[in-house]
Amino acid sequence: MATAWSESMLQLVRKMNNFYSPGSSRARCLRFEVADRHVGWILPEMVSILKNFPDVFDPPKDGAISLSSSLDSHAKRSEVMDGVLQTLRRNDALTCLKGWREEKYDVMARYCDTPLMSMERSATSLFGVKRYGVHINGYSRSDDGELRMWLARRSATKQTYPGLLDNLAAGGLAAGMSIGDTAVKECEEEACIPAAIAKKARPISTVSYTYEDGEGVFPESQFVFDLELPADFQPRVGDGEVQEFYFLPIDKVKELLVSDDFKPNCALVVLDFLIRHSCIDPDTEPYYQEFVEGLHQNL
Amino acid sequence: MATAWSESMLQLVRKMNNFYSPGSSRARCLRFEVADRHVGWILPEMVSILKNFPDVFDPPKDGAISLSSSLDSHAKRSEVMDGVLQTLRRNDALTCLKGWREEKYDVMARYCDTPLMSMERSATSLFGVKRYGVHINGYSRSDDGELRMWLARRSATKQTYPGLLDNLAAGGLAAGMSIGDTAVKECEEEACIPAAIAKKARPISTVSYTYEDGEGVFPESQFVFDLELPADFQPRVGDGEVQEFYFLPIDKVKELLVSDDFKPNCALVVLDFLIRHSCIDPDTEPYYQEFVEGLHQNL
Repeated sequence: MATAWSESMLQLVRKMNNFYSPGSSRARCLRFEVADRHVGWILPEMVSILKNFPDVFDPPKDGAISLSSSLDSHAKRSEVMDGVLQTLRRNDALTCLKGWREEKYDVMARYCDTPLMSMERSATSLFGVKRYGVHINGYSRSDDGELRMWLARRSATKQTYPGLLDNLAAGGLAAGMSIGDTAVKECEEEACIPAAIAKKARPISTVSYTYEDGEGVFPESQFVFDLELPADFQPRVGDGEVQEFYFLPIDKVKELLVSDDFKPNCALVVLDFLIRHSCIDPDTEPYYQEFVEGLHQNL
Repeated sequence: MATAWSESMLQLVRKMNNFYSPGSSRARCLRFEVADRHVGWILPEMVSILKNFPDVFDPPKDGAISLSSSLDSHAKRSEVMDGVLQTLRRNDALTCLKGWREEKYDVMARYCDTPLMSMERSATSLFGVKRYGVHINGYSRSDDGELRMWLARRSATKQTYPGLLDNLAAGGLAAGMSIGDTAVKECEEEACIPAAIAKKARPISTVSYTYEDGEGVFPESQFVFDLELPADFQPRVGDGEVQEFYFLPIDKVKELLVSDDFKPNCALVVLDFLIRHSCIDPDTEPYYQEFVEGLHQNL
């Protein structure tokens, strides 16, 4: 019953959730706790590194590493953590810190919780803290009803996933920014979409998954927006994060999704779009249920 | 930040996933295996009952109860299981079998797998086998763009959840029926919607959850359809499963969702609809992420 496309798509969904697959390092990971809240996952390889900062991290206990309780405010925790990360960055020991962004991410157990601290974006995977972002699906319908999607090709000089296909616009949720404002901002900056049009983007879902790679653990949730663009509207390259935009029929989008040409988490956002827009039929797609659950994993 | 509505909705989402909550009987349950595939969950209270059928069930081993491997075909398994269930029904020991339906459900590890056997619907919870259904959201938009939903009130004589609010139409997926055909059939039977209109229902998601109660374990996945009805169309009471239909503004629907007046799994299907139709804003709904993940739990 399964087709090659279905099998490839299922593999991608599983790969993006490999932290919860058999054989992952999850069983060996320690919880990262701040103020008694579980906010992340620490790979065992990090434990010996963190032991060098005994004033900042308590020794491992009951499967968890905690930030010292003497750090009892958002400001203190953020400042001390920044000092640790700057030290590690100078020591050049951790690859991911070479991509230092000067961009702060909030750290909290759930999105709705008051942030306990903030942390440099490139370091979040070392502590496996949840990251939130905003992705915008751009699409139009022709007069005869045919659905087409806008895809972006990332700049060849992007730090992560250079040259790969991406959603119309997307970006991380920086500390203190609202979700809606981030969507409008990314549309403007990356695709030169005027705010008057970008504000029509409709929030419709989250896509959440947790993967691990050599650089740590990535529990991510993307707030997803659909933006129906006027049929004659063309996004334009803006801040240089994108090199080109494509306006593609759904069959072509489906084909690209399972190619190596797509940034993997953006492929999940498109899969969610295809399901919600009935481009995938549960009577012919054998893994329909597995796709939907894989797109919305618990963080 | 959280409102009373948000808290009530989160409680409902959690209640419908209570099998995976701390304190559930999951840790004490045995896996139910057929032909070496894990197809369900058996509450410890059932183990002594199943011991009375040593030719059918192997003794518990490694946390699992298996159907005897001598039952090596769909036909043999289904027939022998039917014999067991008829015996238990005559003995009057199990409440859920009082609701015997004469309706067969397929048993398989994943929806896309070839069914290993079939089983009387009212007995599925005793073995915690996955159940699949189809739910149809009916809605219209007025000329000024206001969205309204159709809800059904279940007949006072329904065996389960009598008198409670329900989606426009819904039904279990009987062995051998396609998902699309089931949607059209339920629309016709329960709401007198002609096939020509019902066929416009669009498959857009699944809503999946696992709960337990005194009658067993319920891992369920509902294939969800959205059906936009003409503004002047009125569903009518059909086969007597419904007593009345209501056409309600979204604010009223939201209010009813967290009342005791709603069949709980149908409330989840409506919550999914409200999220997909941007009736809930991630910047003001604190549990947006928790809602989306709770609506799509792994079976």
